[in-house]
Amino acid sequence: MSTMLREIRQQPEMIEKTIRGESAKLKKLGSFLRDRDVDLIVLVARGSSDNAAIFGRYLLEIVCGIPVSLCAPSVYTLYKAKLDLKRALVVGISQSGEGTDVNKVVEQARKYGAFTLGITNSSGSPITEVSDETLLIHAGKERSVAATKTYSGQLLHFYLLANALNPGASISLEKLPEYASTALGLEPSVAELAGRYAFMENCVVVGRGFNYGNAFELALKLMETCYVVAERFSTADFQHGPLAVVERRFPVILFGAKGATRRTDLEMLGRLKDLNADSLSITNDRTIARASSRSLILGSEIEEMLTPIPFMIPAQLLAAHVSREKGLDPDSPRSLSKITRTI
Amino acid sequence: MSTMLREIRQQPEMIEKTIRGESAKLKKLGSFLRDRDVDLIVLVARGSSDNAAIFGRYLLEIVCGIPVSLCAPSVYTLYKAKLDLKRALVVGISQSGEGTDVNKVVEQARKYGAFTLGITNSSGSPITEVSDETLLIHAGKERSVAATKTYSGQLLHFYLLANALNPGASISLEKLPEYASTALGLEPSVAELAGRYAFMENCVVVGRGFNYGNAFELALKLMETCYVVAERFSTADFQHGPLAVVERRFPVILFGAKGATRRTDLEMLGRLKDLNADSLSITNDRTIARASSRSLILGSEIEEMLTPIPFMIPAQLLAAHVSREKGLDPDSPRSLSKITRTI
Repeated sequence: MSTMLREIRQQPEMIEKTIRGESAKLKKLGSFLRDRDVDLIVLVARGSSDNAAIFGRYLLEIVCGIPVSLCAPSVYTLYKAKLDLKRALVVGISQSGEGTDVNKVVEQARKYGAFTLGITNSSGSPITEVSDETLLIHAGKERSVAATKTYSGQLLHFYLLANALNPGASISLEKLPEYASTALGLEPSVAELAGRYAFMENCVVVGRGFNYGNAFELALKLMETCYVVAERFSTADFQHGPLAVVERRFPVILFGAKGATRRTDLEMLGRLKDLNADSLSITNDRTIARASSRSLILGSEIEEMLTPIPFMIPAQLLAAHVSREKGLDPDSPRSLSKITRTI
Repeated sequence: MSTMLREIRQQPEMIEKTIRGESAKLKKLGSFLRDRDVDLIVLVARGSSDNAAIFGRYLLEIVCGIPVSLCAPSVYTLYKAKLDLKRALVVGISQSGEGTDVNKVVEQARKYGAFTLGITNSSGSPITEVSDETLLIHAGKERSVAATKTYSGQLLHFYLLANALNPGASISLEKLPEYASTALGLEPSVAELAGRYAFMENCVVVGRGFNYGNAFELALKLMETCYVVAERFSTADFQHGPLAVVERRFPVILFGAKGATRRTDLEMLGRLKDLNADSLSITNDRTIARASSRSLILGSEIEEMLTPIPFMIPAQLLAAHVSREKGLDPDSPRSLSKITRTI
């Protein structure tokens, strides 16, 4: 079995351990930050961590009412801008804790007056030194180049942070390990479905709102492990402009949650049907499933806000199994290494 | 001649008229906003306007030191979040002024305490009613579905706004019409080069910093007018993960300015050469041009910050001419209409 598949399966355990291990720290941090009167949150990341940050921006804005900016690292590292961050919380997200430019931005942000927080899977790593406080993912070492369990761990930390910043939100996370286990149970269906995509060369992955970050993350997994040219869009943006690339049998993969984004999803699926395109939905909504060429179905009882982790798990499994169908090794993507050292 | 090509050629005139027509208003607006002590700028847009906003975020953060957030409209429209925007300037950008969700966000933002500004090509359009102040692009009506002159007009307005917010910056714009005319002079080279891409089905477009938004915009033009599956990345992110999709002769198009991003560009071009990939640079740097398979070269005297408009013009020309080489009509992209009405 590939390391990637083994690590995908460790996610229910990661969720339980992380919630248990970090709760006390988050409680203290929350009360400290609420006193500080944060009026801007800046999220700093690269690659998969940046995809997790896209989710974080939706969650924190919606749950805490605080505007969020996804950082452009070069503004700090190449252009040496001095931003006014006195009332900002700056969160660096890095699996390894060694992302050179992420750490540099966090360090600068602290100088410009921000309170800084690091989210990492690696205790004692460089990001912990430049951050005022560190939140740890308890995932065990991630060996696969394709991040899986640490991506979900980052999503999880945004829930924990949202609860800390706004205790009134009380997002209930106790069922998440169970949802993750049920999602892993889809593996036989995913393995069967993967054959259909053995010769896929291009595709588009879409999602909106809470699942927008997942669209970026699945596209990245398909690029890294399957060498598929995978575009990613919000379900809304996709229908204006990019839709022009769609021809008969063009594959579109949708993260379609029951909830606020459902109407956009169904509208898009209708247009894809008219174009004779091929759609695969990862969904917990029967109507979305019926409107798609293929679907992977999760429980309709999962609240929209909690769908991203259980939806990402079959998506990760799909990338791993399509990689196998293509005769590739998902643990050894060509041209890549595990740690990102941009400046 | 296609409407798209005709409108591309109107850009030097648009620049002159817009600067002349809006300067007095911007001077007053600047002094008003500086008194207001703005500590966050939120940019709200869809499609090409959103690509212009990516440039705006770099420019405003670097020149004014104010953090910028690129808005996720669904946070307001679908999830009904109430954000604290008391110290924010919220800028809606819409060519037609009729983008339903952009206008809805601007309207909400005003209720949440923000000062709101609309940037549009259409005086008297709905965005002007929900905005406290309007900045007009003087481009004349844009008839092509593929936005060209209004995209450049939006970039131009970010320079004008940056100068208004920070008069100390005094970004000199007087040479821009001349740079735009020189860029138009590349059309014969572009027309010749376009044949090389007649059978291109996939590509990647990259840029970083001031030219990051251009990468998104050229990719969108290639999707809309040439039906090419065009990915877009920052030159930095591209090398971590997405690079795995690159094979022998895979086309990568780079916006490579002389300046802060040059080192990343040259590093990437080196890796592409090792992979036998095909690179096309739009550049004003001789070393970048030499390191690329093909190039479109502009004057090295253009300051990095001012490269986005002169660099985008040959890129727009390229999309229009590749469309022709593919036997398509760039004015009638399949499945699309001109105005974006998402909710």
